[in-house]
Amino acid sequence: MSDFYDGLETRGPDQREADLFSALQDQLAHAKAHSRHFAESLKDFDPAAVTDRSGLARLPILRKSDLVDIQKPGAPLGGIAATFDGGLKRIFQSPGPTYDPEGFGDDWWRTARALYAAGIRRGDVVHNAFAYHFTPAGVMLEAGAHAIGCAVVPAGVGNTDLQVRAIADIRPRAYCGTPSFLKIILERAAEQGADVSSLEIACVAGEPFLPDQKAAFEAAGIAAFNVFASADLGLIAYESPAREGLMVEEGLIMEIVRPGTGDPVPAGEVGEIVVTLPFNTDYPLIRFATGDMSAVLTGPSPCGRTNMRIRGWMGRADQTTKVKGMFVHPRQIADICARHPEVLKARMVVTREDDADVMTLHCETEAQDDALTAAVTETIQNVCKLKGGARLVAPGSLANDGKVIDDRRDAGTQT
Amino acid sequence: MSDFYDGLETRGPDQREADLFSALQDQLAHAKAHSRHFAESLKDFDPAAVTDRSGLARLPILRKSDLVDIQKPGAPLGGIAATFDGGLKRIFQSPGPTYDPEGFGDDWWRTARALYAAGIRRGDVVHNAFAYHFTPAGVMLEAGAHAIGCAVVPAGVGNTDLQVRAIADIRPRAYCGTPSFLKIILERAAEQGADVSSLEIACVAGEPFLPDQKAAFEAAGIAAFNVFASADLGLIAYESPAREGLMVEEGLIMEIVRPGTGDPVPAGEVGEIVVTLPFNTDYPLIRFATGDMSAVLTGPSPCGRTNMRIRGWMGRADQTTKVKGMFVHPRQIADICARHPEVLKARMVVTREDDADVMTLHCETEAQDDALTAAVTETIQNVCKLKGGARLVAPGSLANDGKVIDDRRDAGTQT
Repeated sequence: MSDFYDGLETRGPDQREADLFSALQDQLAHAKAHSRHFAESLKDFDPAAVTDRSGLARLPILRKSDLVDIQKPGAPLGGIAATFDGGLKRIFQSPGPTYDPEGFGDDWWRTARALYAAGIRRGDVVHNAFAYHFTPAGVMLEAGAHAIGCAVVPAGVGNTDLQVRAIADIRPRAYCGTPSFLKIILERAAEQGADVSSLEIACVAGEPFLPDQKAAFEAAGIAAFNVFASADLGLIAYESPAREGLMVEEGLIMEIVRPGTGDPVPAGEVGEIVVTLPFNTDYPLIRFATGDMSAVLTGPSPCGRTNMRIRGWMGRADQTTKVKGMFVHPRQIADICARHPEVLKARMVVTREDDADVMTLHCETEAQDDALTAAVTETIQNVCKLKGGARLVAPGSLANDGKVIDDRRDAGTQT
Repeated sequence: MSDFYDGLETRGPDQREADLFSALQDQLAHAKAHSRHFAESLKDFDPAAVTDRSGLARLPILRKSDLVDIQKPGAPLGGIAATFDGGLKRIFQSPGPTYDPEGFGDDWWRTARALYAAGIRRGDVVHNAFAYHFTPAGVMLEAGAHAIGCAVVPAGVGNTDLQVRAIADIRPRAYCGTPSFLKIILERAAEQGADVSSLEIACVAGEPFLPDQKAAFEAAGIAAFNVFASADLGLIAYESPAREGLMVEEGLIMEIVRPGTGDPVPAGEVGEIVVTLPFNTDYPLIRFATGDMSAVLTGPSPCGRTNMRIRGWMGRADQTTKVKGMFVHPRQIADICARHPEVLKARMVVTREDDADVMTLHCETEAQDDALTAAVTETIQNVCKLKGGARLVAPGSLANDGKVIDDRRDAGTQT
């Protein structure tokens, strides 16, 4: 049996890029024709001109945080979907509330690839402890298991005793769910002397997967793999047996951008994940900023998969904060930098001194001089309508953590 | 658009019977070949000999209450299913626990027919408030909606405020769920001033549907239809626009038998529902006694559907009780009757007199004489290992309520 779900995982990077961008041109035309949102946001863009990543980077960003404003009663998907509500398979509600669609078609969320990489195979029984109510998490992983040809126990969340009993009676080979709930299930089973040793594989998601959890699962004979997915995009990236970062899924184009902007960062730098779906005709998301931060892990994976790798989830990207009662947005920091080409990278550091908010823009520049400092200081005032200082530092001085606004007031620390 | 989901609903009764029993012969052979349970229970029966209802009535009964003993850890479906565990689509856990399978294939539970009869059509959005966790209720109704071509909001149970918000935002045309939860949702919406007027149709199941609920839904502009389904069989019967009893589903053979036996009762008499699935190759249930009571409603339905009708759910059939610390089973009453052909119908009445349990078998007989009374009394002692009296009554004296054991001790009444 192959180590790979299909040949897409091992195609040459140039071939992948050609495949994705060829599909993207059709997708952009489809989105403009059938999605009210993209008909408007892409009206000045010619799909045929988007032939590579630089062309893609010129298209507008759609932020996950914008959905709550775009979606309206009676138009729960905000005109973004290309399929009418009644033509979808399911409509989900996430906290906010925001709404997410699912179309008809097998493995619409493309999760089978992650389950396969973890070792799940046709004929396995999968205990699925993700919720099915309102959220797509449950069906998302289930559809992947079905695509492989597995039986699923739709256990959902809660009812730990029933979960233990179901595992002991049905003897599934794999678990899908949060790592913390798997830990609870294993502990309860141990207390009760219930035999849950049928479990060999776990696909965990929905929260950070901690090293002590991984160790506890290994001690129980369970190889656990991290899965990174979201309610809007489905599978984004997944852990392979190489266990070096996460492999990007084959059905999407991922960019890492400077938070608050649509500008790709250099490979390896931490930024916000932006995803484009070139194949999903129901929900043709173009440059969808997830609000999650990560970074490209350079070099090829030892597992033989050739796609881009990322370092996993590195925090939330939305760094908007309030200073002296006024909102400061990441895109304002980007605006300031845009007015001063000498500034290679910048981060607004917010501190509290003598009961007052203090805002200082740390700027990486090749040369540090007083004239530039003064000019940047003036731009801060113009853009943010707030007084702020500028401090010029050498390139490479700022930490690679994706922070554009570093609010240090809560922690009470100073540097 | 047709009033009927397909042509099966209006075929002539003889044609239906021929179609069902033709399929049944193949199904019996399939069950004997692929189900460990039926290979054993049907080993003495030739499928080719089962050409009609009298042939079917000779096959053994499988009682729902037996599942908990047949099912074992590692064999959660007790060898009844004809598909191996890992080849199924889902495995569910019901209280007990007992386990139920679902196979691959569209609308495996055959619920689309009920939703269609209620008026649900392609392109509708359905708010589904049945649970998806462990129980099949949620996916059962969802699969029917998908077969029609509807979008489903998988709301599940609980979270009344989120349910109201989802209905107000998404504006579904139909609701599936329990009637009591729909009433709670409508009341909460009224309190909050939320607009849930998009709802026009409800398919309710899972509990008795009370007249005051029906009236409340009609006042809210919602036409509600009763759906009768179970976790093992899927759709059993459904309300049609004629609103006279429930139409039996087209993919099954239904019998009504005397509780505790496999003997069909005359049309119109209350008894236990026994269902055979001639088409389900994953779970080929043959003469499955549901534990529910109903009765045939004679005559044709004014809606134009030609299948058998039943009167709806009329209580639980399992009347096993304890008398003086000993179990008395319905099948023991059947055994007693079998030894006395003069007894046309019988019911064991259990009362409490002077702090002692008293058991009296009321027997319908053409003639009443002391010799028969004495003989039956002796048989009661032999079969039940308990002393009991016999009282012979005229044919037609016993109520038509399906009761074989009438335990009157709880209510404290005497007749």
